[in-house]
Formats: sequence, C-alpha cells, structure tokens
Amino acid sequence: RIDIDRLLGRLMALGQDGALEGGGVCRLALSDTDKLGRDRVVGWMKELGLTVTVDKVGNLKGVLPGREDLPPVMIGSHIDTVATGGLYDGNLGVLAGLEVVSVLKDSGYVPLRPIVVAAFTNEEGSRFAPDMMGSAVDRGSLPLDEALAIKDAEGFVVGEELARIGYAGETDPGHIDPYCFFEIHVEQGPVLEEEGDLIGAVTGVQGISWTEYVIEGESNHAGTTPMRLRHDAGFAAAAVAVAARKVAGAIGDSQVATVGVNELDPNLVNVIARKARMTVDLRNIDEVKLQQAESMLAAEIEAICKAEGVSYIARKLARFEPVMFDSSMVDLIAGTAKEQGYAVRRMPSGAGHDAQMFAPNCPTAMVFVPSKGGISHNIEEYTAPEELQAGANVLLQAALTKAEE
Amino acid sequence: RIDIDRLLGRLMALGQDGALEGGGVCRLALSDTDKLGRDRVVGWMKELGLTVTVDKVGNLKGVLPGREDLPPVMIGSHIDTVATGGLYDGNLGVLAGLEVVSVLKDSGYVPLRPIVVAAFTNEEGSRFAPDMMGSAVDRGSLPLDEALAIKDAEGFVVGEELARIGYAGETDPGHIDPYCFFEIHVEQGPVLEEEGDLIGAVTGVQGISWTEYVIEGESNHAGTTPMRLRHDAGFAAAAVAVAARKVAGAIGDSQVATVGVNELDPNLVNVIARKARMTVDLRNIDEVKLQQAESMLAAEIEAICKAEGVSYIARKLARFEPVMFDSSMVDLIAGTAKEQGYAVRRMPSGAGHDAQMFAPNCPTAMVFVPSKGGISHNIEEYTAPEELQAGANVLLQAALTKAEE
Ligand SMILES: NC(=O)NCCC(=O)O
Ligand SMILES: NC(=O)NCCC(=O)O
Repeated sequence: RIDIDRLLGRLMALGQDGALEGGGVCRLALSDTDKLGRDRVVGWMKELGLTVTVDKVGNLKGVLPGREDLPPVMIGSHIDTVATGGLYDGNLGVLAGLEVVSVLKDSGYVPLRPIVVAAFTNEEGSRFAPDMMGSAVDRGSLPLDEALAIKDAEGFVVGEELARIGYAGETDPGHIDPYCFFEIHVEQGPVLEEEGDLIGAVTGVQGISWTEYVIEGESNHAGTTPMRLRHDAGFAAAAVAVAARKVAGAIGDSQVATVGVNELDPNLVNVIARKARMTVDLRNIDEVKLQQAESMLAAEIEAICKAEGVSYIARKLARFEPVMFDSSMVDLIAGTAKEQGYAVRRMPSGAGHDAQMFAPNCPTAMVFVPSKGGISHNIEEYTAPEELQAGANVLLQAALTKAEE
Repeated sequence: RIDIDRLLGRLMALGQDGALEGGGVCRLALSDTDKLGRDRVVGWMKELGLTVTVDKVGNLKGVLPGREDLPPVMIGSHIDTVATGGLYDGNLGVLAGLEVVSVLKDSGYVPLRPIVVAAFTNEEGSRFAPDMMGSAVDRGSLPLDEALAIKDAEGFVVGEELARIGYAGETDPGHIDPYCFFEIHVEQGPVLEEEGDLIGAVTGVQGISWTEYVIEGESNHAGTTPMRLRHDAGFAAAAVAVAARKVAGAIGDSQVATVGVNELDPNLVNVIARKARMTVDLRNIDEVKLQQAESMLAAEIEAICKAEGVSYIARKLARFEPVMFDSSMVDLIAGTAKEQGYAVRRMPSGAGHDAQMFAPNCPTAMVFVPSKGGISHNIEEYTAPEELQAGANVLLQAALTKAEE
C-alpha cells in the first residue's frame, strides 16, 4: 500500500519549484524552474538508489533492477506545467512512480521485471509545440533533430534551452523499450466528480489538432478609415475565434475548439491591427469528425480573410490521431480498482498524455483520479488526498501484476 | 512663400528620432525617442530666436514677438507618434509653424501680433490615454493633476516619465491665451485623394469614444472542458470585436468602430483564457449617433459576457464630443486656398487633433493635405512635397491675415 503522506510531501515539495502567489505553479518546459524541479526529482531518484539517465531530449529515467533483466514496467508522466498550472498535472504520474519504488524498497521486495520511473520533457506544449514532445521523441514518432530545433514564441530553441539548464543528456532517446507503460494522471475534466466515481480506467485519448494562424492586414487610422476600406487583421482573428465556437457546435458534443492565443500588432487603441497571431486547438475522440472540424475551420478562415482582404499563413503545431489503449490493460485497471472497492468508470481522456505515445509500441494504461470542479491548467486545480491515494494504490497493484508476468 | 526644401529637410531630420527599419517612426509620447525629437525641435526654436517655454505637462511653445504685445496667433500640433507612425502625422503641423516663422525671419517682416509655435504632449494617446492630452490640459478640459497621474499599460506614469526625459517644465499650462489657433495636418483618410482635391478646409472633428474592457473568465483545459462548461474570456472578447463591427454597420456609414487592443492571459494554445483586455474606439460626427453606438455596444458586451458566464469591467479612456470649427475660420482657409489656385474641399476630420481642444476657446482652423492611399498610423504614410508645399502656403497666408487683425 502506498504511503499517502510521503506522496503528498513530494507533491508539495515539487510544487515549490515555480510556485505562484495564490497557489499553483509556473514551470514551463526548459525554464529555470523546470531545472529546479528536475534537480529535485533526480535527487529523489538517486536517494532511492535508481540508476538515472538523461537522454538527448532531456527525458529523465530512473531504473530499479528486477530479479531478471527483462523488458521493464515503465511508469511515467511529466513535471513541466502550463503558465497557470496546478500541483498534480503530470507531477502525480512521476511521483506516484517514485512512490511505487519507495513501497518496494521499504518492503524489500524485488519484482521479476525492472521498474522504470520516467519524466518526459515538455508534455504540455505550452512553451514549445507540439505537446508530448519528449515521449514522442522517445517512441520515434518525432525525429530528435526536429524536436531540438523547435522554437518558442520568443525564438528560444529546445536544444539550446536543454543545454542551458544542464539537461541535454548523452543517452539516445528510446534506449529502453518497456514491456508495458502506466501513467496515473488527474482527469482534468468534470466527469468522475459529476458521476461520483473515484477511478477512471482510461480507454483512449482524443485526437488533437493545433494550428497557428498568422493573419496580415494593413494598419491604418481607427478614426479616418471607413469600415469598407479596412483590412483589419484583428477583426479577422476575432471572427475566426467566433467561427471556431460555431464549428464545435456544428460537429456536436464530442467536439471542442479553443482559441487560447490571440495577439495583435501594433495592439494600440486607435490603430487598425496590421497583424494577428492566433492558435486553434481542435479535439475529437473520432478521427473522422476531427477531420471534419479541421476542414470546416479551414473554410471559415479562408472566407473570413477573403472578405476582409487580409492574408494568412497556417502552421500545424501538433496533430495526433485518437489513440485506443490495449483493452486488456484497461481491464486490468478497472479490475484492480474494483478489487480494492473503488467506484470505477471506463472513459476517454480529453487531454493529451505521454502514455498515448507508448500505446502503439507496448500495452499501455492510464489511471485517472477526479479533478475538483473539472478544473485544470488553473492554479485552482485540486484532487483530494484520499483520491490520490486510491489512484496510486491502483497503479501500484496493476504495475506489480505486470512486473511479475 | 514657404521654402519646401527647408520644411522637408526638417521633416526628414525629425524622422530620424525613432526611425523604424523600412521607414516610418516610433516616437511614443514621453519615450526616449520623444526626448530626442523634443530636443531637436527646441533646438530649431532657439536657432530661430523664439522664446521657448516648457509647461508642467511638457507642452513646448516658442514665441516670436509681434509689433504689439497682443494675444498671439498660435500654430501647433504634436511630435509624438503611434508605434507604427509616419513622418508627417503631427510633425507637419509643428514644422510648418517653424517654417512660417522662418519665412518671416528671412523677409525681416514683423507682424502685428506675436506668432507662437506649439508642440503638444501626447496627442496620439497610444501610450497614455486620452489622446490630445497636452492640448486638453492647456485648454483646461483635463485637470493637470489628473493628466500627470495617468499610467501606460506597463504602469509608467505621465508625471514621472516627463521628469525622466527632462520635460517636466515650470510653466503653468494655458499661460498663453491665443487670439486664434491654426493646425495643418495630413488628412489620414482617403477623401482628398479620391476626390482629386489638394486642400481640405476642415469643418470639424468627429466625436471620439474609447473604452477599455477587462473581461475575467476561468482558465481551464482546452481538451477536457466541454464547450457548455466554459467561461472563456478570449471568446467573449472575440465576440465583442465582431459585435463592434456589427454596431458600426447598424448605425451606418458615418460610424466607425475599431478593436485595436486585444490581449489574452495566459495566452497559451491549450488553456482557455482567464482574462482578456481589449479596447473599443467608436467615432461619429453626430453626437446622437455616437451615443447610440455606445449604448448598442454596451448592450452587446453585457449580453455576450452573461451568456459566457464571465464578468467585465469597463473603463472610459477618452470621450470627446464632436467639434465644429468657427465658420469664418473655415471660410478663411477655403478662400486662401482658392486665391492660391488650389482645389479645396470643406470636410470633417476623422481623427482627433489638438486644434479641437482650442475650438471652444478661440477661432480655430485646420488645413488638411492629402494622404496617399488614405493610409496613416502606418509606416507607409505619405504626402507628396507639392501637397505639403501647397498646404503650408495656405497656412502661412491665413496665419498672416489673422496676425494683422
Ligand atoms: N495533460 C495535459 O494537460 N497535456 C497537455 C497537452 C494537452 O492535452 O493540451
Ligand atoms: N491625428 C491623430 O491621429 N490623432 C490621434 C488621436 C486619434 O484620432 O486617434
């Protein structure tokens, strides 16, 4: 059984690296606070006697040897956060992995297979797109060179930022091919709480489509330029944001659409905007519907920009098809939760996760615990200690089951 | 007759203070480049033997004595620019004033009344709202204390910035009550060019209403939060921008509406925006219609924010009623232009101008010259030398007529 006080203690300690006033944390990937968090996690791994590697994209792995040198059971997630992040998102998955190792150490029990605890670089994608960058490179779906060359909005480059914070490792990503992969995560949505369930056995992850649009119009005077003569990049961006909401409504309940970024240039009260940069995040559990949403939105922006007499450039920032987890792994999570007396629900994930990058390569499972009010990517993100404890116990049991196979 | 080469030379020289790559200039009010521009203008005033005063809000005035110590003819405008400004907007009005003085000096002629050349602080309002700040303080419609306490978007304060650049003068604003006021300015709109006229005799200035809205919603996850549970400040801001365009259409041709500022927080691809800050600029030559536009927009934002479950705070940044210039002054400009053989048109101004602050106090007139393509607040802003020359000659003649009264 896991020790909830130890797990909570580590969560709170890690929450100090990048802590925000009023709660929550800002630990953007490859920032100075990410370095602090990494140092802390590596310290814990070493304390637990794990063999630590840092790979070329900065993924951290700590290995606990098994009775035999077989492909290991990997437990992982991320410790980077969004700019207004909570204490649990990602961190729980890494620290619950350390908790599993701690329980084994305490009991003196050595499982058949090694256990690997992993923390992947830049899962959030807030600073550098795409999200799930480290796990994607680990599993070979994103080339290492490509990842290292990606820039943030200010022009900082992944490879240089890794070196700057001292986490550009020597090891080739993907050097460990796991037997199976587990990730525990906060749900980040309202379903478990609304349904009164404690554990989510995650069936899959919805598809993710991120596009950046840079719209170019013509700056002009807000007072002297008749409406009919305007080429207002800011108006076009606003119209696209409104259209994105309409597209979500047209596709139906399963579709979400978000314009999270919108920046105008020169961004002055009496100047028609010359330029707008915006992003659209579209998701659906159904690839066909997601493609439908993508083409509807593409038609909307085309029509809007044409009518306004502005041009635009579209750039794909991320595109992941929906992922289904191995059904026997879903059954294992659901069965383990039931054995322990927890109300469990099979459910898809609305957020992207490192686990989805492993799903095509090895049996993969995710455990969800409730998010209070369905809130995440917000400093109010919260999961109660009993819920964390239940989830971590399900993870422990399921991982040990696989570690003896 | 004015010397166009000298006038152009001063325009180009002043354009070096804050010059942008590709042309144009960024000389935001009370910035380091504003200081450079002010130093240059004060230098020219002193070279011409003018008595220079700097008042407590940073307005510059250079006085050329007349044959008698009567209330003077004032010629003025501004040298601050927007962030993407041209070389003529404002600068022309100040430097044409210096050109009038230069012509008088060259000819040895001393007019009956003194001539004052003025450069008013922060006409653009891009950095500190409201616009026409210096002339409004000069004419007593904006209290000095209030103006000195105004902050820009980063929290810098007018009074402190004035002191920092060395232009917090000792003189009380409004220490000179002019006999009449003249301002020559580029039209900044397309009318003169489209109609093939060279000179605009400005009949008045349309009313200006600037409002800032800060919308507060709830940040949450772009993937996990169903559309129906969102409180998206960014969506609300976009819907308001679209509504502003609709309001302009409903009021009709004379109404313009611009959302020049729109900023999201945290401004990340996969986070529903917690906060949006935006501005709406509404203008109409008709006060009743302007009020109609204001109330329509207020109703729109109320409805949009209610539907989205977000709150907002509205703050008036500027509000000026439409202004009519003295008809005998409009006649003087139109008559002088005709005498000189220039095609002249009576027309209202779409942009705010320092002259409008003088209109309630003394006979006031404005001369417009064409703006190529109707473009301004853009580095492409352009007026041809012949057009500048014609306008400055009309100004010279009209000012001398009044200076002998
Ligand atoms: N779990 C999580 O928030 N991942 C970040 C990537 C995304 O889903 O936007
Ligand atoms: N002339 C001019 O651009 N004035 C700035 C104030 C405004 O009209 O927005």
